[in-house]
Amino acid sequence: MSAIFNKGDVITNNYFTGTAYLKMLVPEGTEFNCPIGNVTFEPGARNNWHTHDGGQILLVISGEGYYQEEGKLAQKLHTGDVVTIPANLKHWHGATKDSEFVHLAITTNPQKGGTNWLEPVSDEHYNAL
Amino acid sequence: MSAIFNKGDVITNNYFTGTAYLKMLVPEGTEFNCPIGNVTFEPGARNNWHTHDGGQILLVISGEGYYQEEGKLAQKLHTGDVVTIPANLKHWHGATKDSEFVHLAITTNPQKGGTNWLEPVSDEHYNAL
Repeated sequence: MSAIFNKGDVITNNYFTGTAYLKMLVPEGTEFNCPIGNVTFEPGARNNWHTHDGGQILLVISGEGYYQEEGKLAQKLHTGDVVTIPANLKHWHGATKDSEFVHLAITTNPQKGGTNWLEPVSDEHYNAL
Repeated sequence: MSAIFNKGDVITNNYFTGTAYLKMLVPEGTEFNCPIGNVTFEPGARNNWHTHDGGQILLVISGEGYYQEEGKLAQKLHTGDVVTIPANLKHWHGATKDSEFVHLAITTNPQKGGTNWLEPVSDEHYNAL
């Protein structure tokens, strides 16, 4: 599978399990008020549970992944899926065990704040999906 | 080339030359303040010159197209290109003569207004590109 958008660099913060890459396509702090990142998860990689102060939109570019809101079953995501994540809703997203997963992530209403990172998605939780 | 996002329906307004399709992935008027459309231009199709009150971002998904700002040369666009269009800047976009062209179009700062449609890109202008 050839990538559409630039893959960028390995994410080195502590809010991911496994290996993921980020390329900011539109940076924060512009007149557009619309930061956009291209995120690539290797198989098995996922981010921690987290919330967004102003919400987020995910646009799935390739591969298969998961999106899970707290208290609900994980949803499987495929190429072309669109996920709208309301402000302050605890959730996580990432790849399936067997597939790379690429999505665009758009920070909505960035004037309301950023991302609040919480605990990792444990291996026990993830492996039971 | 298989489509990533839903192609949607033929655009029937008078602001396009040739055949183009639109699928709104995220509608106007939501809490996200981030309308997103998937636009597919058949070869030779393009929109009229226009401006956006709050700007627009284009993310090129597939094919080859053009983006031109008033008073500048047209830029050729390819898969993976990102175009940030400032508010109130007169411009147009569309396919090349020989390629389908698909881009996501994100309306930025929608609270500032919408799109102001102007004159068509003439065949004389387009065919000279």
